[in-house]
Amino acid sequence: MSRPPIDLRSDTVTRPTAAMLKAMTEAELGDDVFGDDPTVKALEVKTAELLGKEAAVYMPSGTMANQIAVGVHTRPGDELVCAGTSHVYLWEAGGIARHSGVTARTFEGDFGILSPIEIDDAVRPDDPHYVRTRLVWLENTHNRGGGRIHPIESIAGIARWAHDHRLAMHLDGARLMNAVVATGIPAKEWARYFDTVSICYSKGLGAPVGSALTGTVEAMREARKLRKLMGGGMRQAGVIAAAATYALENNVERLAEDHANAQILASAFSETDGLRLESGPVETNLVWVDVDSSLGTAAEVAAYLKSHGVLVSVLGAQVIRACTHLDVSREDVEFAAGVIRQLEPAMITALTLVY
Amino acid sequence: MSRPPIDLRSDTVTRPTAAMLKAMTEAELGDDVFGDDPTVKALEVKTAELLGKEAAVYMPSGTMANQIAVGVHTRPGDELVCAGTSHVYLWEAGGIARHSGVTARTFEGDFGILSPIEIDDAVRPDDPHYVRTRLVWLENTHNRGGGRIHPIESIAGIARWAHDHRLAMHLDGARLMNAVVATGIPAKEWARYFDTVSICYSKGLGAPVGSALTGTVEAMREARKLRKLMGGGMRQAGVIAAAATYALENNVERLAEDHANAQILASAFSETDGLRLESGPVETNLVWVDVDSSLGTAAEVAAYLKSHGVLVSVLGAQVIRACTHLDVSREDVEFAAGVIRQLEPAMITALTLVY
Amino acid sequence: MSRPPIDLRSDTVTRPTAAMLKAMTEAELGDDVFGDDPTVKALEVKTAELLGKEAAVYMPSGTMANQIAVGVHTRPGDELVCAGTSHVYLWEAGGIARHSGVTARTFEGDFGILSPIEIDDAVRPDDPHYVRTRLVWLENTHNRGGGRIHPIESIAGIARWAHDHRLAMHLDGARLMNAVVATGIPAKEWARYFDTVSICYSKGLGAPVGSALTGTVEAMREARKLRKLMGGGMRQAGVIAAAATYALENNVERLAEDHANAQILASAFSETDGLRLESGPVETNLVWVDVDSSLGTAAEVAAYLKSHGVLVSVLGAQVIRACTHLDVSREDVEFAAGVIRQLEPAMITALTLVY
Amino acid sequence: MSRPPIDLRSDTVTRPTAAMLKAMTEAELGDDVFGDDPTVKALEVKTAELLGKEAAVYMPSGTMANQIAVGVHTRPGDELVCAGTSHVYLWEAGGIARHSGVTARTFEGDFGILSPIEIDDAVRPDDPHYVRTRLVWLENTHNRGGGRIHPIESIAGIARWAHDHRLAMHLDGARLMNAVVATGIPAKEWARYFDTVSICYSKGLGAPVGSALTGTVEAMREARKLRKLMGGGMRQAGVIAAAATYALENNVERLAEDHANAQILASAFSETDGLRLESGPVETNLVWVDVDSSLGTAAEVAAYLKSHGVLVSVLGAQVIRACTHLDVSREDVEFAAGVIRQLEPAMITALTLVY
Repeated sequence: MSRPPIDLRSDTVTRPTAAMLKAMTEAELGDDVFGDDPTVKALEVKTAELLGKEAAVYMPSGTMANQIAVGVHTRPGDELVCAGTSHVYLWEAGGIARHSGVTARTFEGDFGILSPIEIDDAVRPDDPHYVRTRLVWLENTHNRGGGRIHPIESIAGIARWAHDHRLAMHLDGARLMNAVVATGIPAKEWARYFDTVSICYSKGLGAPVGSALTGTVEAMREARKLRKLMGGGMRQAGVIAAAATYALENNVERLAEDHANAQILASAFSETDGLRLESGPVETNLVWVDVDSSLGTAAEVAAYLKSHGVLVSVLGAQVIRACTHLDVSREDVEFAAGVIRQLEPAMITALTLVY
Repeated sequence: MSRPPIDLRSDTVTRPTAAMLKAMTEAELGDDVFGDDPTVKALEVKTAELLGKEAAVYMPSGTMANQIAVGVHTRPGDELVCAGTSHVYLWEAGGIARHSGVTARTFEGDFGILSPIEIDDAVRPDDPHYVRTRLVWLENTHNRGGGRIHPIESIAGIARWAHDHRLAMHLDGARLMNAVVATGIPAKEWARYFDTVSICYSKGLGAPVGSALTGTVEAMREARKLRKLMGGGMRQAGVIAAAATYALENNVERLAEDHANAQILASAFSETDGLRLESGPVETNLVWVDVDSSLGTAAEVAAYLKSHGVLVSVLGAQVIRACTHLDVSREDVEFAAGVIRQLEPAMITALTLVY
Repeated sequence: MSRPPIDLRSDTVTRPTAAMLKAMTEAELGDDVFGDDPTVKALEVKTAELLGKEAAVYMPSGTMANQIAVGVHTRPGDELVCAGTSHVYLWEAGGIARHSGVTARTFEGDFGILSPIEIDDAVRPDDPHYVRTRLVWLENTHNRGGGRIHPIESIAGIARWAHDHRLAMHLDGARLMNAVVATGIPAKEWARYFDTVSICYSKGLGAPVGSALTGTVEAMREARKLRKLMGGGMRQAGVIAAAATYALENNVERLAEDHANAQILASAFSETDGLRLESGPVETNLVWVDVDSSLGTAAEVAAYLKSHGVLVSVLGAQVIRACTHLDVSREDVEFAAGVIRQLEPAMITALTLVY
Repeated sequence: MSRPPIDLRSDTVTRPTAAMLKAMTEAELGDDVFGDDPTVKALEVKTAELLGKEAAVYMPSGTMANQIAVGVHTRPGDELVCAGTSHVYLWEAGGIARHSGVTARTFEGDFGILSPIEIDDAVRPDDPHYVRTRLVWLENTHNRGGGRIHPIESIAGIARWAHDHRLAMHLDGARLMNAVVATGIPAKEWARYFDTVSICYSKGLGAPVGSALTGTVEAMREARKLRKLMGGGMRQAGVIAAAATYALENNVERLAEDHANAQILASAFSETDGLRLESGPVETNLVWVDVDSSLGTAAEVAAYLKSHGVLVSVLGAQVIRACTHLDVSREDVEFAAGVIRQLEPAMITALTLVY
């Protein structure tokens, strides 16, 4: 291949642009463990404002932001309620139990989108035999559910139910800005139903590193203590926080392009024999695809695509995911769609023989 | 009521008989924390032999035996596979996460009876994002599934699958002897598919206190260490272990009577309007019953039965459980069946008005 | 040996007397996990009254009572302040970290007796780098410190300091009744400086099994939940609780005999060449002895004593402990003292040669 | 003050130079969570070679590297042996217990420098009452001990003892390169006594963010898994790793300047009435100073110095620390020394009156 591969594996693969790097090198720095980094502080203020929360804490990753949210809301022996496909349960290495002694009560949801009715019985009785139900955990957009948006009315209903049962609410908003751009509903409107909200600068927004947790001043004081405990206290962190600030200022509206590009991929996948959109219409920038065994395995399909210059993620024996982001253009996506449309069993077999 | 209530709440409510008390007072005792109690040691040997395992450790409760089994097989950040209705997940207060940092991947099963097919995909990929799947957990008989027996062929299939994936197998055999008596399959035949097996002396067997964990000498050395850590080391424990030995020697075969008695209750429940056996035919000594809302709530039905001298457990808004055991006779059960058959909406309403 | 060995290893080795066994067999029983055991409930009331606390919870061991006290007062990431020779730190298998995520800041004390001055700087600064100091832990009498009594004025001073720093106070009173009998100061007078107090029925008091944790109604509600989590919920626990009640009613005042007997042993040890009371004058029923290497190792001395019908504990390369209790009489102790006084290097060597 | 303050609080406060920033902006990047960042990989290889270990893992902080080392070597219920002044015990927020369920057995050492003799009895007996001793933890240079170097012969002796007792050895080498430069003993010579070694790029070496853990391939595989669990997986981490590589290539030898500068401060402190070097002669870049109460409190002295343009850390009621590093020149240090030499009670009082 003369052109570099088109990397649709994740929106985490973006590289900083020259303008973002310039912002990083010009940032005013200090030792953030001592509270001396003005760039980190400014990012925290900006993020808290964006989400309508009192305070924010910068974190090295979305996993740390999520795990610390669990620690802020629970004590060992508590339980959280979430979709079984939630990032916190599925892709955070069992951290809720290991870090916080917390179990998960998982629901299937509609591709991960929980409803007030489904979880209505989720609160355990008040008796020493039972775990204490403490926290409701939603993820919006819901990655493993096809990047779908959790309808705000449903969130409102769950929040009322949680309030009635004195449960805390956390939003894993790693890709909340995708939901914001796709719906036109402001971030703080989504966030107001939750005690804490995490967001990632390093996914669709294109920063190289970093996430944040937001909430009340008191909760963030505890989060800052837990961040030190987790080893998330960094020194001149402003150098990477500057990229996050740049991302918030420059890369939000353009998520609409990623969504439009995802539609092109979605059409290509859904119109190709042996492929099917796993959870129906694509709403944001993630395209999850079921591979029929008549076509081959997910690994075989991914290998074929790779051999033609297109990288996707294999996330199940018969499941692949493609993701649009800042570093793939309309042209790239059209090229990828063309490759996808050529998929047929014979080609994959041919490839397999070559290997 | 002139007669004492017939207590069908659980098989844990049995009181030691005079003969059992005599065995307790005559037991030779020592300080078991120093390994000096001959009665405890003899019970451990007898229990290990019963289950065909190398060694056993006496425990103050089945919950401790189970929690220590989790500790023996896992390390923090691991996951166990179990039915969502398992005692270890449902009624042990979130202990797997709090004590051992372990998460549960739960399956519904057929009223808690897992099949090899259902769990075939349960092993997480070997990647830092994922928890490490480590332990398969079965419960036989399965309490929350209606006291049903896990078919031994299904266990064998799961064991093969577990072996292929290098997973440990634990059997929560709190009521294993009920399965033994109901099927005629010896305890050690069931146990051979598992690395560790716990059993309870204090349920159908009628001892006042105590359970055991069994397995290899090496696993039991670790279990003994964990027992000390959990505060389960007891001094002249032989005084209660003697009751367990008595129970093993005298109260196993008679479980057949409990099963026969449970059939009488099952008929009464299933033939009464508004009541339904939750999981179909009753196989052992537990009778789980769905209460139709036309009849009232579970609490209302239980209150009515109580007012007529019959105690049952309320284990859901519309769920009750009745349990036969050593301290309820055929006559008691027939009396209870008569009370049950009289249940009808009007009577419950009348009672409610009186309150 | 025609007579059985005199067992001075621990006051935990006592066997129930006929009268105690009678109390056990006559106890009214129920399922304590359901809160139905009247004998357990009565013991809890009696114990709470003895210590002037609102409530008590019966436990299978002192280790569990202590570990649950840690759980009641702390959350993971907290620290407790204690003597490095405390039972909770030394002999509970690292439970504070494993069960509760708590570290210990240890002080040497005067053979384990802390003073307000020594711990004055023990509170960590309020900064994310530091653990949160939360709990002060005293043990009275202090086992590893020679069974010494913590002076009540010193306790009062520490309690004032703890109150000023908003720290909780726990008393490990496994042998508190020894301090009560030795000083004449009532149990509730000692207990009033502490938020929670644990006591053991199975040490000097002579019951076969059991301890209790006492404190406020709210703290005990949490303790009861933690007891279930730890696997300390037992069914017809009244059968052993009855022995504890018997012990409280019959075996307290007689601890004075144990103390007098300990003086006889202390004299024998201190007047024998090569032996020395580790922490000075003996105050209660524990006699800790340093063995000079000219006489041999602790193991050699213990082996010699054992060959002459006297059992002691080896608790260090050059340390033994002898303990008086309900099952050793004045005559036994005088016999043991005679054996001790005959200790000399040649005899031990002779024994070693024989082995 | 017209000149910016001279910041002697810590060697963590350094800001990246233009050359370092250039290296950062030119680094080739990828998604390190997917193992795609060539700059991070190159840094890991370079670091492993420096320390003579098979592999290294890049971390966001030294605290995370240390906490993960605990996790690699232990399981809950284990104990580590360390100086009570160790960073891991004193300044990592109780993480060993919270993350890993591990207790610490602390020794005073000679200002934190442990000797084989002092810890000879540190291994707990193999008995269920005791925690399992598992890990020996040294810190070189020892921050809280005055930045002193642990003599290599002493390390060798401790390593032999640890090997005899099958204990793992970890070196917190946050400032190991200071010991290397001060002694001329290569890093890998120090490292060979340890199973794992952590080092920090963000202290004397001057990178803005980051540390590493090094050890065998197998240990580092586990460390990488734990890093994900802790939330330490970062995306285009090469942007900060490039600074660490730059630091290793350019900023090691110059640590000698920091050490020479520290001598100037040490002379100024030791020759001023009321100030005293806490642990004797200064060996590297840290100067710990006891403040006599006749001069005032540590906070008062620090405030005076600050008002004259010199920042130091207050690390105790009567303790301050000054630290030399890349961002303070010889001239800065001489200026600071001049300010220090002017310290006298009257001046501090005067300042206090002004406030």
